[in-house]
Amino acid sequence: MFGRLLCRRYHVNSLKSLYGQVDSLPSKVSNINGWIKSVRLLKKVAFIDIQDGTILKELKIVVPFDSQSNLSSEVATFLKSLRTGQSIAIKDAKLVETEGREQRFELNITDPIDNISIIGNVSESYPLQKKYHSLPYLRTLPTLKHRTSYLGSLLRFRSELEYNMATFFKLNQFTKASPPILTGSDCEGAGELFRVEANGYVEKKQHYFGKPTYLTVSLQLQLEILAMAFSRAWSLSPCFRAEESDTNRHLSEFWMMEAEWCFTKDTKELTTFVKDMIQYITRESYKNFDDFIPKNIPENCLPRNELLERWETLLRDESWNTITYTEAIEILQKRDKEVPFPNYRPIWGEALQSEHERWLSESYFKGPTFVTDYPRDCKAFYMKLNPDGQTVACFDLLVPGIGEIVGGSIREDNFELLSKEVSRRQMNKNGELDWYLSLRKEGSVPHGGFGLGLERFVSYLYGNHNIRDAIPFYRAASGNIDL
Amino acid sequence: MFGRLLCRRYHVNSLKSLYGQVDSLPSKVSNINGWIKSVRLLKKVAFIDIQDGTILKELKIVVPFDSQSNLSSEVATFLKSLRTGQSIAIKDAKLVETEGREQRFELNITDPIDNISIIGNVSESYPLQKKYHSLPYLRTLPTLKHRTSYLGSLLRFRSELEYNMATFFKLNQFTKASPPILTGSDCEGAGELFRVEANGYVEKKQHYFGKPTYLTVSLQLQLEILAMAFSRAWSLSPCFRAEESDTNRHLSEFWMMEAEWCFTKDTKELTTFVKDMIQYITRESYKNFDDFIPKNIPENCLPRNELLERWETLLRDESWNTITYTEAIEILQKRDKEVPFPNYRPIWGEALQSEHERWLSESYFKGPTFVTDYPRDCKAFYMKLNPDGQTVACFDLLVPGIGEIVGGSIREDNFELLSKEVSRRQMNKNGELDWYLSLRKEGSVPHGGFGLGLERFVSYLYGNHNIRDAIPFYRAASGNIDL
Repeated sequence: MFGRLLCRRYHVNSLKSLYGQVDSLPSKVSNINGWIKSVRLLKKVAFIDIQDGTILKELKIVVPFDSQSNLSSEVATFLKSLRTGQSIAIKDAKLVETEGREQRFELNITDPIDNISIIGNVSESYPLQKKYHSLPYLRTLPTLKHRTSYLGSLLRFRSELEYNMATFFKLNQFTKASPPILTGSDCEGAGELFRVEANGYVEKKQHYFGKPTYLTVSLQLQLEILAMAFSRAWSLSPCFRAEESDTNRHLSEFWMMEAEWCFTKDTKELTTFVKDMIQYITRESYKNFDDFIPKNIPENCLPRNELLERWETLLRDESWNTITYTEAIEILQKRDKEVPFPNYRPIWGEALQSEHERWLSESYFKGPTFVTDYPRDCKAFYMKLNPDGQTVACFDLLVPGIGEIVGGSIREDNFELLSKEVSRRQMNKNGELDWYLSLRKEGSVPHGGFGLGLERFVSYLYGNHNIRDAIPFYRAASGNIDL
Repeated sequence: MFGRLLCRRYHVNSLKSLYGQVDSLPSKVSNINGWIKSVRLLKKVAFIDIQDGTILKELKIVVPFDSQSNLSSEVATFLKSLRTGQSIAIKDAKLVETEGREQRFELNITDPIDNISIIGNVSESYPLQKKYHSLPYLRTLPTLKHRTSYLGSLLRFRSELEYNMATFFKLNQFTKASPPILTGSDCEGAGELFRVEANGYVEKKQHYFGKPTYLTVSLQLQLEILAMAFSRAWSLSPCFRAEESDTNRHLSEFWMMEAEWCFTKDTKELTTFVKDMIQYITRESYKNFDDFIPKNIPENCLPRNELLERWETLLRDESWNTITYTEAIEILQKRDKEVPFPNYRPIWGEALQSEHERWLSESYFKGPTFVTDYPRDCKAFYMKLNPDGQTVACFDLLVPGIGEIVGGSIREDNFELLSKEVSRRQMNKNGELDWYLSLRKEGSVPHGGFGLGLERFVSYLYGNHNIRDAIPFYRAASGNIDL
């Protein structure tokens, strides 16, 4: 059926389709299009490698010269006009098996002038020549960089990961929902919010929505409404933060996956779910490691063997660690006495700093680490207070190389307790949280959930160290927004 | 495996899991949670209907009184305290088959005080009592409305539709990508843009991103970059428009699905793809009509039988119509002479008005209708000019009840022709489109694509007439943004 559909919808064959038929290849193929990765012109043969971006693999095209080639011949002139970056269309070619080589077949074209046409030329200065390009250099080429193996494959990997994530939530009976991006509430992270106004209202004293409007930093509060309608709800949505931090782990526009579900009562159930989700996604990726991870890894990215080890670690239950915040502080303080952390002392009651988080997961546990039960004043108002009266039922997931990628908690579902906490924090002065509190009055249930930064998660699994490469065109405190 | 996973992750059984095992039901079940839809207390038995939102179906619980019930007994007192909207947990119950009835089993609970506990109470004024609520009324209850059958099922339907859409694109080898929402370009629809600024910069003369920043109205231009890297790219993303129109077909924040692919040359290939996509999604939905569409349809929404007919029409190839804009104008002018349209004369060179679009698809063709090849000045600058020099290679898809839901075109891939058109329209005065034009210099290929308004599409398939119900919390020219 799939073949039929392809024929109806497209008049060209993709490289992915071609490689998908590798065990029953026809002897001839028609209508293959792509971009030239490299051309080598030898005395009796030309080799042309093309890619079309549907998969990581390239396709080798062999053009033998039909006689003792005269380099001034028409054929030679044509072949000499082929250049890296051009888009070409191939009309007809023979498929030849290539035993023993990595690419199990190649295209053989005997009449190149008839069978190869250049669709789109390149400028003299086309920068993606066949040589090593550093990532900092590629980032200066936003319209072209995705045609490279490493950055192209990174986004194909993200695409596949999003699909596997959606499948996991579907299997677990979650409803995907899209709470709003535009919000009138600034109750989380006021300093780092973006303000929004209709262009025609910027100079006026009125507001398009009747009041100051912001871009959301998290959909959680609204997602709780939906969890209480569907039992289980999740979202995948852009979130915005006017970060002043300008590091390779911060974005002003990023995608967040959030999940929220009912009838869950303890942090252990949340962390089990998160581990299961990450293992499901890793397992699906693991099946196709070579399809995602290129042979050549750029500088400052995780080498293939270490990446494979990272995935295998994730798949082993016993590599996962869980400690409480209080235990973490004890471990950190012991370490700090022996080898002091560069910038911050670990002190109970204060947030874990990046240097603490990374040391814990990278050096101490050497694997993914849940830290649970933080002091309540380190965390948001909606988290459920533990019986100790000091800590809340929450967790962060720390991973080597990145730091925090997931944070979640059980939410306070009791109206009186939540109201008290809201007052203690001097929030809700204008009743902007009344709707949220009201959920605790109408069929309230124990519930909890978590948020995962998609670009951080993708980067952790792909091994790129700069999350700005995990989104097609990044927005950050530095960098431009021209396209 | 699935059962095992469920047990590990959740300590409760969902109604979806229960109904999923309908052919091999155990005789006893434990740990079922949900919200009470209705309670009926008779002389010898109580009926409690619960829902948990994982599916449309409710679950009937039967509580026989164990003796000649004394209404002052403890049991009776407990049963009388049950009320619609409360969340309850059921510890243990017998599963009893109910032959002949629509619900094939019910729960039988003999010791309600031990086996039913109220988790969360409701206020005296809990509004979702078991009676008919109009949609305008439900829209005034944003924290509760999703618990109703019609609006809850609508969002579950959207969730399923999004997954099926993703599957279609995966089968067709598209890479899902997320071009940016924040953009420095205002070249499309300047008047209706939203401006964005970091909260801390609003009073300053500086900009967080160094220049005025907007929320995108379409990701197409950046998606073209990605199509030229992956051959086939798609996105599902919020878009924003500061609409002054305040109708049931307009949103200020909406989700748009956009697709863009290479090596496609004519509008026919685009419309075939769109038809295939809509048929794929409809076919997947059709398998589960009763799981999505409630028995009771509110006023002003499409009745079940007409909805089923709508889906069956979509599945028949011969119901799909294609005409050119020029043919459409001829048909409309003929009609206009006989029965004049209320507000607008159909005139070649002017945009089709909503009243024209709806008459064409609803009354004339009575089915989905592609209108192709509009005059170039009715459409955007990037569309490919047809050989006639007057029209462009584009299409809109018009459907009964909604109007336009899809628009697409072949893009001009020739640098000189596109530059000329950009100049003719006096665009790109500050070089803001240079990056877009540059794509036509580096391996340019024929390509095209389309955009689909997700809430319109969902509403068309679900039969609700107000697209504001197809998103959990709507943002529009009227209405509030409090949550």
